[in-house]
Amino acid sequence: MRPTISDLGLNAGKKARLFRILFQSGLCNGTALFLPYDQGFEHGPRDFFANPDAADPGYVARLAVEGGFNGIVLQIGLAEKFCWDFAGEVPLILKLNGKTDIPSDTEALSPVTATVADAVRLGADAVGYTLYVGSPAQAADLGQYMRVREDAARLGMPLIVWAYPRGSAIEAKGGKDSFYAVDYAARVASELGADMVKVNFPHPEKRSGVPAEYYADFSPQEAMDAVVRSANRTLVLVSGGSRAGDEAMLEKARLSAAAGATGLIFGRNVWQRGHDESLKFAAKLQEILVKYPCHSIENFPRRHRSFGENMLLPS
Amino acid sequence: MRPTISDLGLNAGKKARLFRILFQSGLCNGTALFLPYDQGFEHGPRDFFANPDAADPGYVARLAVEGGFNGIVLQIGLAEKFCWDFAGEVPLILKLNGKTDIPSDTEALSPVTATVADAVRLGADAVGYTLYVGSPAQAADLGQYMRVREDAARLGMPLIVWAYPRGSAIEAKGGKDSFYAVDYAARVASELGADMVKVNFPHPEKRSGVPAEYYADFSPQEAMDAVVRSANRTLVLVSGGSRAGDEAMLEKARLSAAAGATGLIFGRNVWQRGHDESLKFAAKLQEILVKYPCHSIENFPRRHRSFGENMLLPS
Amino acid sequence: MRPTISDLGLNAGKKARLFRILFQSGLCNGTALFLPYDQGFEHGPRDFFANPDAADPGYVARLAVEGGFNGIVLQIGLAEKFCWDFAGEVPLILKLNGKTDIPSDTEALSPVTATVADAVRLGADAVGYTLYVGSPAQAADLGQYMRVREDAARLGMPLIVWAYPRGSAIEAKGGKDSFYAVDYAARVASELGADMVKVNFPHPEKRSGVPAEYYADFSPQEAMDAVVRSANRTLVLVSGGSRAGDEAMLEKARLSAAAGATGLIFGRNVWQRGHDESLKFAAKLQEILVKYPCHSIENFPRRHRSFGENMLLPS
Amino acid sequence: MRPTISDLGLNAGKKARLFRILFQSGLCNGTALFLPYDQGFEHGPRDFFANPDAADPGYVARLAVEGGFNGIVLQIGLAEKFCWDFAGEVPLILKLNGKTDIPSDTEALSPVTATVADAVRLGADAVGYTLYVGSPAQAADLGQYMRVREDAARLGMPLIVWAYPRGSAIEAKGGKDSFYAVDYAARVASELGADMVKVNFPHPEKRSGVPAEYYADFSPQEAMDAVVRSANRTLVLVSGGSRAGDEAMLEKARLSAAAGATGLIFGRNVWQRGHDESLKFAAKLQEILVKYPCHSIENFPRRHRSFGENMLLPS
Amino acid sequence: MRPTISDLGLNAGKKARLFRILFQSGLCNGTALFLPYDQGFEHGPRDFFANPDAADPGYVARLAVEGGFNGIVLQIGLAEKFCWDFAGEVPLILKLNGKTDIPSDTEALSPVTATVADAVRLGADAVGYTLYVGSPAQAADLGQYMRVREDAARLGMPLIVWAYPRGSAIEAKGGKDSFYAVDYAARVASELGADMVKVNFPHPEKRSGVPAEYYADFSPQEAMDAVVRSANRTLVLVSGGSRAGDEAMLEKARLSAAAGATGLIFGRNVWQRGHDESLKFAAKLQEILVKYPCHSIENFPRRHRSFGENMLLPS
Repeated sequence: MRPTISDLGLNAGKKARLFRILFQSGLCNGTALFLPYDQGFEHGPRDFFANPDAADPGYVARLAVEGGFNGIVLQIGLAEKFCWDFAGEVPLILKLNGKTDIPSDTEALSPVTATVADAVRLGADAVGYTLYVGSPAQAADLGQYMRVREDAARLGMPLIVWAYPRGSAIEAKGGKDSFYAVDYAARVASELGADMVKVNFPHPEKRSGVPAEYYADFSPQEAMDAVVRSANRTLVLVSGGSRAGDEAMLEKARLSAAAGATGLIFGRNVWQRGHDESLKFAAKLQEILVKYPCHSIENFPRRHRSFGENMLLPS
Repeated sequence: MRPTISDLGLNAGKKARLFRILFQSGLCNGTALFLPYDQGFEHGPRDFFANPDAADPGYVARLAVEGGFNGIVLQIGLAEKFCWDFAGEVPLILKLNGKTDIPSDTEALSPVTATVADAVRLGADAVGYTLYVGSPAQAADLGQYMRVREDAARLGMPLIVWAYPRGSAIEAKGGKDSFYAVDYAARVASELGADMVKVNFPHPEKRSGVPAEYYADFSPQEAMDAVVRSANRTLVLVSGGSRAGDEAMLEKARLSAAAGATGLIFGRNVWQRGHDESLKFAAKLQEILVKYPCHSIENFPRRHRSFGENMLLPS
Repeated sequence: MRPTISDLGLNAGKKARLFRILFQSGLCNGTALFLPYDQGFEHGPRDFFANPDAADPGYVARLAVEGGFNGIVLQIGLAEKFCWDFAGEVPLILKLNGKTDIPSDTEALSPVTATVADAVRLGADAVGYTLYVGSPAQAADLGQYMRVREDAARLGMPLIVWAYPRGSAIEAKGGKDSFYAVDYAARVASELGADMVKVNFPHPEKRSGVPAEYYADFSPQEAMDAVVRSANRTLVLVSGGSRAGDEAMLEKARLSAAAGATGLIFGRNVWQRGHDESLKFAAKLQEILVKYPCHSIENFPRRHRSFGENMLLPS
Repeated sequence: MRPTISDLGLNAGKKARLFRILFQSGLCNGTALFLPYDQGFEHGPRDFFANPDAADPGYVARLAVEGGFNGIVLQIGLAEKFCWDFAGEVPLILKLNGKTDIPSDTEALSPVTATVADAVRLGADAVGYTLYVGSPAQAADLGQYMRVREDAARLGMPLIVWAYPRGSAIEAKGGKDSFYAVDYAARVASELGADMVKVNFPHPEKRSGVPAEYYADFSPQEAMDAVVRSANRTLVLVSGGSRAGDEAMLEKARLSAAAGATGLIFGRNVWQRGHDESLKFAAKLQEILVKYPCHSIENFPRRHRSFGENMLLPS
Repeated sequence: MRPTISDLGLNAGKKARLFRILFQSGLCNGTALFLPYDQGFEHGPRDFFANPDAADPGYVARLAVEGGFNGIVLQIGLAEKFCWDFAGEVPLILKLNGKTDIPSDTEALSPVTATVADAVRLGADAVGYTLYVGSPAQAADLGQYMRVREDAARLGMPLIVWAYPRGSAIEAKGGKDSFYAVDYAARVASELGADMVKVNFPHPEKRSGVPAEYYADFSPQEAMDAVVRSANRTLVLVSGGSRAGDEAMLEKARLSAAAGATGLIFGRNVWQRGHDESLKFAAKLQEILVKYPCHSIENFPRRHRSFGENMLLPS
């Protein structure tokens, strides 16, 4: 059900960069586990109080490398100051917009903070953009998004859309993580050209105010399946959100992978604990993803990278 | 009554592309049946619940080819990821703006999501733009429309305007599908340079709040005739809207064709049913359109494309 | 051996436009017969003395439509003044550079006369560029060519390269139509991104001054086969050149088609005779091409365009 | 002696891309074996006569993947049409200029055929530029080179300079592969900002016409050592040139690696023989390079990519 | 035989301005008599010695108004300083390039001196450009011409090309006013998008060095007929050249009008004599043109501008 990287209608640059993320990083099996690290901007340093080490971008970057993540997500400032140290060792996803959570979300809009050209210059393998689906500020949002989409297409840079239902209208129609809202958001990302879409896990039990089609009694698995279908050729990443119990998170991960999601993007649930615990939890997520390998696009026989074996092949 | 393609004051590029749509696709007789498929963005995935296959853009594209449609209407994201598969097999109309239906329509505005240059790059034969006629946000709307119109003229790309009365003021003056509102919207599209205009079927019986001139007892046919006259050299397409009874839809199509409309643009009424039923319904619409051929622009004798006959002509 | 249109690494716009040329024009079987008509610029009106009617672009355009050609090649001036009349009826290939034959060819360079944007505006389905391979002026030539290639890629416009060995150096190494020169020219077009390449038929017997690899006793068929291989994913068109005996031209066409060339581009051999004779000769060329259909890319079942049959399918 | 990747003064994008080439491709040990494939443009198809399969870019791309090369070098046309197939599987080095060998080399200049932006769009990990050191046309050469260097810096793209002494003046001063000429060329590349420089193996015995400093009796190893020193923080690649005896080529490779060259760029010596022989010869070159690993830049412990081992680390 | 203004494939702006020149100026019958006055730049003040009054642009402008000319041709400097005085009274044709006759014409090139935007700003109704057909400098010439053509199309400004065979190559092939050269030049202007072309009267008796097709015994009328055919939808203006006998000039005018030329552009033959003599000679030219009215495009009834009244004015 999950599309292969060759089915996505990508140009050569997007395909090469996604290949690096999905087949040359992490599990190298077409799945992805990303480490987002822009919470210092989105929520403030309070997110680091649970594990003060996590306030250090160098610490989190080492975690991304040690943990075999498929990518680390950074805002431009941390990327400029810390990426050089680990350039090439773990893919960089440059987040191109963001905001503080100080003002109200009623007319949510996430302003642009960097460009796709910045991402190219820093050697990033993807860019991220937060689209507040359903926000009354959607005109401004779609306007800045269009520019990002066009630059990403022109420069062959994969575009990951954080498709987040948000604003007064969505609050009146079931809230931001109803099945209706998440399903709609995934579809909007697909209709507007995202290569990957990051969604919250859908809650089919949140029905108050949603359109009639979403009144039925959907299971979480059915809801997640539908979200992946709505996204069609846009690969789905499921967000971890704020820290919750490990088993609940792993179940979310299992349902997502079973539905055909390509991967997980878990930040606070990873680094809001000690170093070794973080790596252990990441490994548990990978234990799930390793069971859902994606059809590889590798057209050609290929020597294994360890040199000893290399020697054997041509003889 | 319907103008021929040579009467429209088109430049060479617009004429060549319209010729492909009207005379080299579908019935090839100067009429048009379009398949719109941007409802996943405009309304969300709930529109696909009646026929879950329709959530797959590949399925709908195949329907457009099999059904002999004159064009399929897509937003940029689906066009980027799916068009390559059927490039050239059915004309693409790239929709250049759109919005979700989550926030209120009081100050309706449909933000730009793609450019005429995107349409050129994808090999589209026309572009679509939603103009919310009468919306309090008309200043922003006309501003972005002007840019689209200029680019379309410069690049020889036919411009189809979705002329939709919308917003608080129109609600107070008879609503969005009164004869008054539809007639006014068709004229605005013509005054502002649309090559084709998509309108809702006018309802002359909706008179509450409309100007006095629209109080008289107009028949649906008289109303539709007037709308086509108001559009003058802008070709008219009649929208299907949300799904309704087949006979009512066919009657709408008959009245439209008789009034001189060039074609129909029916989406949900087509694909919100099973595959074979969709094709049967499309064929019924074509049975109407085939009776209203438009004067061809073909100036030159032309060999038939089947090679056997080809051989006979010059000898 | 001939690549299908899906194998060529084309973006959606290039694929859609090539599809129109190869599968919706002429024989509609993946082959191409083009009518070039820029000789009034390249050689002057003397080329029309054999058939004065041919001085009239309207006459030649009618010939292209009547004869079922896959495209007509024009310079910008004739395209601007005549294309409107037949816009959409036969694909336009806009030639983007050209020169008179008055000055010497020693340092041959064909200056740019129009842009890819002009071609888009006129609704053209391809552009043509003459690259004088091996000319001492190659720096200027490649400079202006790069701009054309980039614009063509950006706008999804197929690029046909007239790959013509020319200049003092090539004259010293076997001349412009040796197997060596034609083979090299086809490869250069491929290395530099042509979607189609127009070559002269190679003459393996011209060996004086060519590199040692070309000394062997190649048959014309072997030479033509090699040229098609050198062009790899660039489709090959064989030029007619100045008027010669019909049987010689037909034999050239047969060898080209057998080698996997996609088509023929014959001008003077067509229109330097009376109207009916021109159509008869075109039909003879098509009798050859019809035997070499290319694998279609049509992925989807498709209703036939004649309406009667249309009606039968969905029932 | 050889600088590590962290010593080179690179920005983050250049470092990330070089890391991929040197530590995530081929032997993954900081050395490089590149497969150049632009000879169809530089010399014409005659280079493929020894192994006709090599005329097919797909065949050569497979060879690059199978042989564990660190990169394949292509001109824009072949990159556009073939890269998609293997995007991400082997690094692409896009060659940004080139020329045919038809006109005289007296005033050698290699015109620009593509831009750094093209390379970004195609997902390339480096760009190549031929600088004809000492050519009378050096003003034009350095002019276009400056633009390439600036773009490469701005976009974080490693720049490999083919530093080739060429033209009438160098012919009069010992020829293009004297120790003097190669040494000078390596230094020019370094002085002008190359990240890597491709040189011919220096011939200290060619002394006729060279400056007095190069009269002494240098051994090949001493000459090669000096060239690497002249290049300082510009990594050195040694070119294979036209095909020669295997033992001579391997000796050239040994001396280069011992001198501190980072790698080898061998084309005709690889693909001008059968498929299995090509791979065997590449393996022999790698047997040399594996003995000269470069200090890694890996700052962080890293889980091995095979999942089983992955599981062990954090526990 | 002469095309009407509606047959020319013009956009609305070009059509409106040409209509002013051809139907609202001079004889108002679709013919044109232009007064060129750039000889002070092209030849120097020596051209005014025969009638010193003619050195005063105000005097010549008055002549243009009094003589009922369809336009006056000026370089930018005189247009800037004198046009205000008679703005609107006689159409201005702004000449956009020019040169002195001091250097040799071997590699003739006429540099650009003003832009189409200057012409718009000055209220001109057409622009003029000298193209030196066949000059070895054709690359530079065509480059600057393309810019003028595109600007003229974009701004709706009619473009008159002075199509002058010139340079060493044309001198070797029969000279600049042979039938061959003039015929070729007219065609080049047409192929490259001129709306009007100014040619010298062709001399069929100049045969030395011309291509074989031009060896036959053509009469002046046959030659002029052929030139008009070669120009097809580009209107033809015949140049007066240096002053000659009145009867010879009138005969040239008669043959031109009979061949279907739209008009005459006579300067020195007009103003190199006294004021009244100038007007008398212009009237004689108009007596010829009045016999060759062009089909009007006037769709609407309109007050007639009867020629009789016209005739009274200069007498």
